[in-house]
Amino acid sequence: MTSWLDEVRWNDDGLVPAIAQEVSSGTVLMVAWMNRESLRLTFEEGFAVYWSRSRQKLWRKGESSGHRQKVADIRLDCDEDVILLKVEQEGGMACHTGRHHCFYRRLHGGQWEQVEPVLKAPEDIYGSI
Amino acid sequence: MTSWLDEVRWNDDGLVPAIAQEVSSGTVLMVAWMNRESLRLTFEEGFAVYWSRSRQKLWRKGESSGHRQKVADIRLDCDEDVILLKVEQEGGMACHTGRHHCFYRRLHGGQWEQVEPVLKAPEDIYGSI
Repeated sequence: MTSWLDEVRWNDDGLVPAIAQEVSSGTVLMVAWMNRESLRLTFEEGFAVYWSRSRQKLWRKGESSGHRQKVADIRLDCDEDVILLKVEQEGGMACHTGRHHCFYRRLHGGQWEQVEPVLKAPEDIYGSI
Repeated sequence: MTSWLDEVRWNDDGLVPAIAQEVSSGTVLMVAWMNRESLRLTFEEGFAVYWSRSRQKLWRKGESSGHRQKVADIRLDCDEDVILLKVEQEGGMACHTGRHHCFYRRLHGGQWEQVEPVLKAPEDIYGSI
């Protein structure tokens, strides 16, 4: 049986990029990667599940921080190789640096400047190691 | 001299994904890829320039359709491997299918359904071939 998962064009590593966008504000929060299993779980569980390329394992967003992403909508683009998740970000912080979102470097005058405040220190999010 | 371009973590193919988000509406319009040259040109020219993986050449968005993307802001994420462009979309259509944006497939009941109208037929955008 053909599954909706078969319609996604996974790359040679079996992955596609996934954008998380906050429903309430429209903010682009982050980009991570998904494999087939993580997209299936995202759909079934209703919370974002990514594939961690560095750890080579499924990554339920918020499993350490509690900052889960509740999924309102799952979109696929015209080339079938990018996912857009519309989410509500629990805890208000999507970025592991303690910021609301990951795109806090802005190109200005030929330099990347940091323009978003750190809302919470990472050690307070994840605990000391 | 170290350039701001050196701070981007290009992948093994020398590319990073770039999201175009419409400033006025917050809509995520599309995702394409950039190499070093295309990001430099985007900054210098003020309009989005991507790298076409299928054609293996620089792609000045709108060069055929006239639907250029005027860049208001260039952002880099925490991992330095994704670009977010905040743009104004000339002509109102970012997608080659004649839609406002590329994320017109919505997962509903285990199927991808198309939920965005075609504003203009592709042959009217690009001309007949």
